[in-house]
Amino acid sequence: MAKELVFGHQSPDTDAICAAIEYAYLQEKLGYDVEAVALGEPNEETKFVLNQFNQKAPRVIKEAKPEVDSVMLVDHNEPQQSVSDIDKLNVTHVVDHHRIANFNTEKPLFYRAEPVGCVSTVLFEMFNEKSVEIPQKIAGLMLSAIISDTLLLKSPTTTDVDKNAVKELAKIANVDYEDYGIKMLKAGTNVDARSDEDLIDGDAKSFTMGGKSIRIDQINTVDLNDVLKRKDNLKKAMKSEAESEGYDLFLVIATNVLDSNSELIVVGEPKDAVEKAFNGKLSEEDTIALPGVVSRKKQVVPPLTDILD
Amino acid sequence: MAKELVFGHQSPDTDAICAAIEYAYLQEKLGYDVEAVALGEPNEETKFVLNQFNQKAPRVIKEAKPEVDSVMLVDHNEPQQSVSDIDKLNVTHVVDHHRIANFNTEKPLFYRAEPVGCVSTVLFEMFNEKSVEIPQKIAGLMLSAIISDTLLLKSPTTTDVDKNAVKELAKIANVDYEDYGIKMLKAGTNVDARSDEDLIDGDAKSFTMGGKSIRIDQINTVDLNDVLKRKDNLKKAMKSEAESEGYDLFLVIATNVLDSNSELIVVGEPKDAVEKAFNGKLSEEDTIALPGVVSRKKQVVPPLTDILD
Repeated sequence: MAKELVFGHQSPDTDAICAAIEYAYLQEKLGYDVEAVALGEPNEETKFVLNQFNQKAPRVIKEAKPEVDSVMLVDHNEPQQSVSDIDKLNVTHVVDHHRIANFNTEKPLFYRAEPVGCVSTVLFEMFNEKSVEIPQKIAGLMLSAIISDTLLLKSPTTTDVDKNAVKELAKIANVDYEDYGIKMLKAGTNVDARSDEDLIDGDAKSFTMGGKSIRIDQINTVDLNDVLKRKDNLKKAMKSEAESEGYDLFLVIATNVLDSNSELIVVGEPKDAVEKAFNGKLSEEDTIALPGVVSRKKQVVPPLTDILD
Repeated sequence: MAKELVFGHQSPDTDAICAAIEYAYLQEKLGYDVEAVALGEPNEETKFVLNQFNQKAPRVIKEAKPEVDSVMLVDHNEPQQSVSDIDKLNVTHVVDHHRIANFNTEKPLFYRAEPVGCVSTVLFEMFNEKSVEIPQKIAGLMLSAIISDTLLLKSPTTTDVDKNAVKELAKIANVDYEDYGIKMLKAGTNVDARSDEDLIDGDAKSFTMGGKSIRIDQINTVDLNDVLKRKDNLKKAMKSEAESEGYDLFLVIATNVLDSNSELIVVGEPKDAVEKAFNGKLSEEDTIALPGVVSRKKQVVPPLTDILD
């Protein structure tokens, strides 16, 4: 069987990196020749996680076709979030927890998606279904990914399946998940240490809605003001990247992970679609408060898609 | 939880009908409020199966939105193969074994696909994963669907997973699957009793390739001549339907289920793409022999897509 690469989306978060390592582990046990790689360097939170569980960061690739013909995707399916040469590759497997959009294959494939808070929760189920034992290190990565994606089980994307997985995985990984979870989330929110460019790109994803190219980034913080005090410079960086990359609309969601509120910074057009989607008025500085919003996938993408499509 | 409808594709074959019944049974056991329905009447083979296992045919629907907001799809995902008002519905679950094409959702969903010979094989695995016991009747339907889709495990789409499922299911259903399988396939190939219109529409699916609207039907028979002796009338019916439905190209694959050879009847354009895809020359009567070809999905759609896309 020819070797395949396994990877998560661009601008990888903890789930994208960890899920690739977890799925590659499972697929190797099932007889596949695979290597987990990443489409970017781990962020501060992910570095904390990898360090905690003594796991090397996956090799970063820019293109896959020079190395392999076939790939396995985790935590994404939309081609614009994938490796740059995805159109030249055969996708044989997908494990995901997002909507399906602009994903077309020529041949049948393995596709496993569930509407749960984290793709590592789906992988936890798949290990169990295939009766593959989860080693302590893999359990630690899964646990961290679920805590990261669900903001310690507080995001509205959280399901009972995620909660149950966290409890089971905490036992295998032998950690107090609440105590560890807060340390991990704080490690990922050192906003002051990051450049404007890194902040607006760190967890950014591209979407196509109603023919428009939309970029949506999310910055986790323990104090919204750490982001908002820099909004003039952030907007400059967003404008510059929107111009060079051709985004119509660029949104940055600043999210307080401790109290689950967000503030949106908006650059580009159509701004009135953003106001309609979130039922509010943009401030003179192009920001809008989103109380109770913590999930891009569940609370930002669907209302915006509704308006634009 | 609001009621949802579960159904397979238009022009339903045995797998499309049986898989809807099987998945509805599983989902009910898991706590969902569902009803299995169908997008057309059962064909002769499926009637034989339902009669054999004492199962009522599912109610036929033309639209789903008047009854429900959400639906679960089996054995298909492409919208043009689904219920006519699919664009007004929320798809919450898909269980399939085909390529993914033109399938877009706004929200995350359950999606389970595997590149195996029959979607009932995937459902067999899902029952086992969820530890839901398979009753004798459901086992009979699963077994029949797998035999139908894989032509008694002889189609190149057949995998070891299908073979294993058939052996396990034959035990639960308490039938000799080889003996039963031949009877079942013969019951579905009574070509003489069917009208031209029924023959060209009985197992037809629509595809979009390279911007062209392509219709591909498959007729199973135990003697190719039963189909070919009627090819002038079949071509007339194909032309007439292509005009009224706007198909650019209409292909009918006549397949001998006993010796695994096919003959293709071609109406519409581009004919040269068909010749290129199958490496041959069309006869003066617009037919082309396809020795060893029995699978639309694996041996007809991919080469045609390669040429047209």
